[in-house]
Amino acid sequence: MKLKIAVLLSGCGVYDGAEIYESVLTLLRLDQLDVQVQCFAPDQPQHHVINHITGEEMAEQRNVLTEAARICRGAILPLTELNAEDFDALILPGGFGVAKNFSDFAFRGAQVEVDTQVCTQVQAFHQAGKPLGLMCIAPALTAKLLGQGVTCTIGQDAGVAGAISAMGGLHKSCAVDEVVVDAKHKLVTTPAYMLAERIDQAAQGIFKLVDKVVELAKIERQTV
Amino acid sequence: MKLKIAVLLSGCGVYDGAEIYESVLTLLRLDQLDVQVQCFAPDQPQHHVINHITGEEMAEQRNVLTEAARICRGAILPLTELNAEDFDALILPGGFGVAKNFSDFAFRGAQVEVDTQVCTQVQAFHQAGKPLGLMCIAPALTAKLLGQGVTCTIGQDAGVAGAISAMGGLHKSCAVDEVVVDAKHKLVTTPAYMLAERIDQAAQGIFKLVDKVVELAKIERQTV
Repeated sequence: MKLKIAVLLSGCGVYDGAEIYESVLTLLRLDQLDVQVQCFAPDQPQHHVINHITGEEMAEQRNVLTEAARICRGAILPLTELNAEDFDALILPGGFGVAKNFSDFAFRGAQVEVDTQVCTQVQAFHQAGKPLGLMCIAPALTAKLLGQGVTCTIGQDAGVAGAISAMGGLHKSCAVDEVVVDAKHKLVTTPAYMLAERIDQAAQGIFKLVDKVVELAKIERQTV
Repeated sequence: MKLKIAVLLSGCGVYDGAEIYESVLTLLRLDQLDVQVQCFAPDQPQHHVINHITGEEMAEQRNVLTEAARICRGAILPLTELNAEDFDALILPGGFGVAKNFSDFAFRGAQVEVDTQVCTQVQAFHQAGKPLGLMCIAPALTAKLLGQGVTCTIGQDAGVAGAISAMGGLHKSCAVDEVVVDAKHKLVTTPAYMLAERIDQAAQGIFKLVDKVVELAKIERQTV
């Protein structure tokens, strides 16, 4: 039976939602590896809407699930319908949606609070011993999601690394084309657009992340 | 000097804008080939806004350029700033944006009219002997853009193939992982999501399209 992996999207567009390159590269690699994929997103309002040319806030209201559906051609389900037991792993692409819609990390740093539904779902995978892949800014939530003493990377940003450390996480510096693997906690992280200056750079790290998550998920299947 | 290729986006999302997978796969492949890329989009209202889960029209107004900017992290220019002489080739990903924002093909089929600005820009590349890459539904505009007797593909859709034929184009059936090359007119086309059922299928055809456009652009550089 094919591996099944859930991908959690936080909208559509780097400044107020899921980073589109990271999301698509994740879905491409999963498909290349013949993994069955289902995208999910919370059915809730975005924190705000950002004009991606000017960086300014727009006087609009959009929904995280409805916008995330654009990335995956409508093949998405509300996060309430995700059952960790039906999947082998969970991957979170980055983008400010993770720091604005899934949490308030963009505004509160180490004092971050994570959306209850997102937190519950990620913890369900973790507690079932299933691997997680977090990229870009998403690993900033590691300590809140998985508890203290878990190793991750967001690349080389001192401010975010410091916040991770302040929350009890262990931050390991990492190049854009590499991953950090915490084998004990089955967590794979990569900097992606926290460091990438070109899409091919991001792809190299993201493909390694997906490959490693799939490898860990296969091992977990054989063990169970 | 690096090749420079322009990518023309019609919004952000398959049902009312540029198909996101096709756009990102195009940009990924161009970057893998070390081509310098600039995205463009017309600064004009979208035809409409579609909820990508329900398929229904939403009571909103969005701008093609502002939404397209989401795909490429804001690195986009208005189409009025595109000068064909500064670039070696032009590529158009598909999505309903091509058939609703760049033209009215979605509503009028073979009686299509193409946006004047889009038409002028595509013709500028063509008249300068520079290669064009069109994917998905975009080749439906071939006869209107490049005149009669040009060979292209949109895959195997009889209705669209018939419309192309009715306009004086030559439609050649093509598999999702292949391209059709009209060497005389320097036009490369591939079905992409007119046929693809998986992102990796789309990637195979799109990568071949980009590879061929780049190959033709290199030959053109050596010739000039």
